[in-house]
Amino acid sequence: MILLDGKKTSADIKEEIAAEVTKIIKQNKRPPHLAAVLVGEDGASMTYVKNKVRACEKVGFESTLIRLKDSTTEEELLQQVHALNADDSIDGFIVQLPLPSQINEEKILLAVDPKKDVDGFHPTNFGRMALEMDSFISATPFGIMQLIERYEIETSGKNVLVVGRSNIVGRPMSILLSQKKPFANATVTLAHSRTKNLKELSLQSDIIVVALGIPNFLKADMVSEGTVVIDVGITRVDDPSSAKGYKLVGDVDYDEVAPKSSHITPVPGGVGPMTIAMLLQNTLLAYQRYQLS
Amino acid sequence: MILLDGKKTSADIKEEIAAEVTKIIKQNKRPPHLAAVLVGEDGASMTYVKNKVRACEKVGFESTLIRLKDSTTEEELLQQVHALNADDSIDGFIVQLPLPSQINEEKILLAVDPKKDVDGFHPTNFGRMALEMDSFISATPFGIMQLIERYEIETSGKNVLVVGRSNIVGRPMSILLSQKKPFANATVTLAHSRTKNLKELSLQSDIIVVALGIPNFLKADMVSEGTVVIDVGITRVDDPSSAKGYKLVGDVDYDEVAPKSSHITPVPGGVGPMTIAMLLQNTLLAYQRYQLS
Repeated sequence: MILLDGKKTSADIKEEIAAEVTKIIKQNKRPPHLAAVLVGEDGASMTYVKNKVRACEKVGFESTLIRLKDSTTEEELLQQVHALNADDSIDGFIVQLPLPSQINEEKILLAVDPKKDVDGFHPTNFGRMALEMDSFISATPFGIMQLIERYEIETSGKNVLVVGRSNIVGRPMSILLSQKKPFANATVTLAHSRTKNLKELSLQSDIIVVALGIPNFLKADMVSEGTVVIDVGITRVDDPSSAKGYKLVGDVDYDEVAPKSSHITPVPGGVGPMTIAMLLQNTLLAYQRYQLS
Repeated sequence: MILLDGKKTSADIKEEIAAEVTKIIKQNKRPPHLAAVLVGEDGASMTYVKNKVRACEKVGFESTLIRLKDSTTEEELLQQVHALNADDSIDGFIVQLPLPSQINEEKILLAVDPKKDVDGFHPTNFGRMALEMDSFISATPFGIMQLIERYEIETSGKNVLVVGRSNIVGRPMSILLSQKKPFANATVTLAHSRTKNLKELSLQSDIIVVALGIPNFLKADMVSEGTVVIDVGITRVDDPSSAKGYKLVGDVDYDEVAPKSSHITPVPGGVGPMTIAMLLQNTLLAYQRYQLS
């Protein structure tokens, strides 16, 4: 069994990005610049955004954190988005979700210039991804595709089961893995809450991607010997024995499934750490494609 | 076995659209207006475009056919597209493909305002479709979804096999049928040229959509009793016994497969006739959503 080590792989990617920034600086150009907008005081959101800003600093990017009060109106946030769209010194930006209830999230996401949409949430980027044009792929699917490529997992003609049809993970994974290109070209089935014969399907699969958010959902009796298992779930479960009072649990019953797998992502340390690395990668891409000034 | 009669269904849809136009006219409003741009003298393209224009007339739409010479430059065609984007009297327009080799098709399609892109080829419409926002769905997948809905075919939790991953048929069908909504909610597998176990997959499927362009590809031994079979293929095959010298053949070996099917689309007269009806439907939608003047 080979561990798909997201911690190590994401560190490799960040090193490659840092080397790229060093080259850029040597050419007397400004480094890539990511901005993040955080509305309100949600604890988890604050942690996520701070981690993103810190990651920018580590690879040599400029970063700007824009904090707006919880009572910010939709109109005020739209103004902020328009200002970031127009600011040539910023290559890409994200609006941290969730937003307070007075703000329509879809309206905000649609206002982001697709050329700066490094989260890859705008329908133009989703469509460009699906139609195999240059785009920004959302961090989680992009990170999984990187793990598959860097561990040289054979996917062509393989039967892949993606469990979960969310717009930010399951749906794009099902599209990316079935496209006609290297580290894809798989026969993909997308399963979800209405799927009736999940166990039958999972037993037939060479590769399973689980993105449901249900702790320990995938059990050993659902997996054939030699399967590649990618676990996108990450749920906090009470754990009085840990200092934090909780532990992070994936959608895969790791202890049961790992011995049967050919490759498997742990939780934590699998898909999770890849996401910030891919946000940085998208920011570098935005810089290279559109700004480079 | 129930025939999925695209000829009748498309006639029903056109009648509904004509009734809608009558209402619009009674309110002293202008009718919906579709424009078509045809570059060059390709015989098949001329026929397609003429049929579209004639269909507009029959339902009471205004239509404009813009014919440009074969030597039209990319810049000239872009100017034409920009003019149509800016013309408030036109609700939607299409640029008939293929285009002469001096013109980059992708560049032209990307220049069409997504609000007037009634072919649904722009990545913004593709992304909006995939993310379940208001969009224009391409005529062929839209037509198939209409056949499924109007014949009340049960899809929820069913195993669907889509064969062929083109951007205009297979890929969007796989997305639409797996979305969380009525006449969808299926467990969809997308198969293609690299798929190794196609027969095994097709025998397990409740519904099969074939969009390959390979005459008589799907044989009786690949289909279980009671399957719904949707045939998107339409290939001209030499036939000296016919007055035209050819006949149209689908991707399904109809004579063999029909007796085992619960529902099946014939070729011709199945999916084909639905496409022009759905182009008209999209034009009406464009009028209702964005123009209504």
